[in-house]
Amino acid sequence: MYAVIMAGGRGTRFWPRSREKKPKHLLDIISERTIIQETVDRIKPFIKPKNILIVTGRKHARELIRQLPEVPARNILIEPVGRNTAACIGLAALHIQKKAKDDVMVVLPSDHGIGKPDEYRQVIKAAADVAEKDNTLVTIGIKPTSPHTGFGYMEGGSSAGKADGYSVLRVKSFREKPDRIQAEAFLKSGNFFWNSGMFVWKASTILNEIARFLPDLYTGLTTIKEALGKESENRVLSKIYKGLVSVSIDYGVMEKAKEVFVIPADFDWSDVGSWDALWEISAKDSKGNVVSGGSHALFENTENVLVYSPKKLVAMIDMKDVLVVETKDALLICKRGQSQDVKKIVDALEAEKLHYLL
Amino acid sequence: MYAVIMAGGRGTRFWPRSREKKPKHLLDIISERTIIQETVDRIKPFIKPKNILIVTGRKHARELIRQLPEVPARNILIEPVGRNTAACIGLAALHIQKKAKDDVMVVLPSDHGIGKPDEYRQVIKAAADVAEKDNTLVTIGIKPTSPHTGFGYMEGGSSAGKADGYSVLRVKSFREKPDRIQAEAFLKSGNFFWNSGMFVWKASTILNEIARFLPDLYTGLTTIKEALGKESENRVLSKIYKGLVSVSIDYGVMEKAKEVFVIPADFDWSDVGSWDALWEISAKDSKGNVVSGGSHALFENTENVLVYSPKKLVAMIDMKDVLVVETKDALLICKRGQSQDVKKIVDALEAEKLHYLL
Repeated sequence: MYAVIMAGGRGTRFWPRSREKKPKHLLDIISERTIIQETVDRIKPFIKPKNILIVTGRKHARELIRQLPEVPARNILIEPVGRNTAACIGLAALHIQKKAKDDVMVVLPSDHGIGKPDEYRQVIKAAADVAEKDNTLVTIGIKPTSPHTGFGYMEGGSSAGKADGYSVLRVKSFREKPDRIQAEAFLKSGNFFWNSGMFVWKASTILNEIARFLPDLYTGLTTIKEALGKESENRVLSKIYKGLVSVSIDYGVMEKAKEVFVIPADFDWSDVGSWDALWEISAKDSKGNVVSGGSHALFENTENVLVYSPKKLVAMIDMKDVLVVETKDALLICKRGQSQDVKKIVDALEAEKLHYLL
Repeated sequence: MYAVIMAGGRGTRFWPRSREKKPKHLLDIISERTIIQETVDRIKPFIKPKNILIVTGRKHARELIRQLPEVPARNILIEPVGRNTAACIGLAALHIQKKAKDDVMVVLPSDHGIGKPDEYRQVIKAAADVAEKDNTLVTIGIKPTSPHTGFGYMEGGSSAGKADGYSVLRVKSFREKPDRIQAEAFLKSGNFFWNSGMFVWKASTILNEIARFLPDLYTGLTTIKEALGKESENRVLSKIYKGLVSVSIDYGVMEKAKEVFVIPADFDWSDVGSWDALWEISAKDSKGNVVSGGSHALFENTENVLVYSPKKLVAMIDMKDVLVVETKDALLICKRGQSQDVKKIVDALEAEKLHYLL
């Protein structure tokens, strides 16, 4: 079995900690390990590091090799340019076929948090059994805990049996990010699941589906496959990859496929997509304050704040619902609930050509 | 004529910028010059630097010499310990008598802001004329612009004539910091003035009053005076000074004296006693934001904030009424209107024995 970790994100949402050279998955935002280190730590118990592939961009390869010494450097697959998840997954599938004919591949985002790793591993094993046995596309659906409007949802349909004690359902429909009313209906129905971006299938299964629904992408991948391991590999990859269609696997394949299975799961998943989300999932003191990164903070009449400032003492007086993030060259002070606007700051830095802060 | 600048403050209210070694008057908080540099710059046009005495503590002497190269080092008078303003002024009066028999001395706090320096100089000259001619105690009273409850007030009484076009009044009463209702009545009456802590008198006049109302202090000062310029000076000063009564000139002398004159003045005075006060007097952008110290700030939906962060970019999102002060080892984030609680932070640092932050 192989794991494919997609590590292509830009991660502007965690500015000023995340930068072009250090997107979210390369940061120790949730724990003392970086998020991608945690991702690898989590799957290592059942997928050997030599079977873990990481797909990333040129800028991040060195840091990945540094952070993940147990993963062979040749397993870091470099995309010449980002071309969304369909191309990324297709490229990884080629490499797996070359190494191992047709193993199951577990496709994982690089930057999610998982509260119950044992449960997580059991669900993935169950999904792998289904993918192996039925030659089908299997997704992990997260049982929703709130009417979240920031995720895509999958609607569960008829039963496809059980695997290792877990229910397997046919996906009846994929739904884009809903509005609040829809999301509440989804939550209430009990039959809708968050699309976690975790997929399990055999390399041949997904390549066949790509061939059917994204034939141009398949043609490009075939050209790359022929060059793998040859002197021309890098030249061909560079030339072909930039011409590949940029489409997500969800939109390009999953939503069109005849049959997709989903295993509904509950392993305390979070995508930790913003400073607000980090405050939400973090341990808090009795006043709701989160002090992370070994920061030293003094609070006077202060509640529901998040502080990251490992290098200097932070004193806060009469502050409520504030996110404070200090790095060596920048300081962010943001009202809690507004951290989506961090992107506006990044845009402003780009407009002012302050590249050293990006 | 002599100037005596009292530079003994601890200045915890501007933490984290003010520290034990750098109280407020040694900081460039209001302009690019430090507050004491501004004070000296302001009086230099009519009192020569060799006639400017500065009374301070041992810890601050070197920094004063560095900041004020035009003032002779021997003019920095070092108190072995702080003993409030009566002793401080008495010590300066001795030095003036020794240098110049009996000149007028203008006593000035080291840490105030003055918006109209020309007017300020004219008022002081008028006060000096009165002090010289009438051998009396003269104070400068600030015409109040708000019902401030943080200052002492002086009540104006009968006229004592005019000096250089300024009205001179007898002080009818001194009033401690009033409550809000009293302060509003004071403001409305037009006859109450803020006690600016600026005094003008001849050295002999104040020493005579000290002899009358604080005889023990006078005895101590006399002992010190006999040792001035002798080998024993430092030893005697150290021995005697710590035994002197610690009392303010206001409480110890002014409130008891038979006759005190006040010249009501309006030269855009501010004591700049806190980060809140600094925001009040500072130039603001159209949203009420103050960016000081050459800081670079990006604001998103942010109003009425003060930012001091010369070393790193500050990005603020959806923040209203916040004071942000960043130094190399500490970061203060304080709700506007609450900066008096900075003292609580300093107390907490003392309690936690974080001396490097004090």
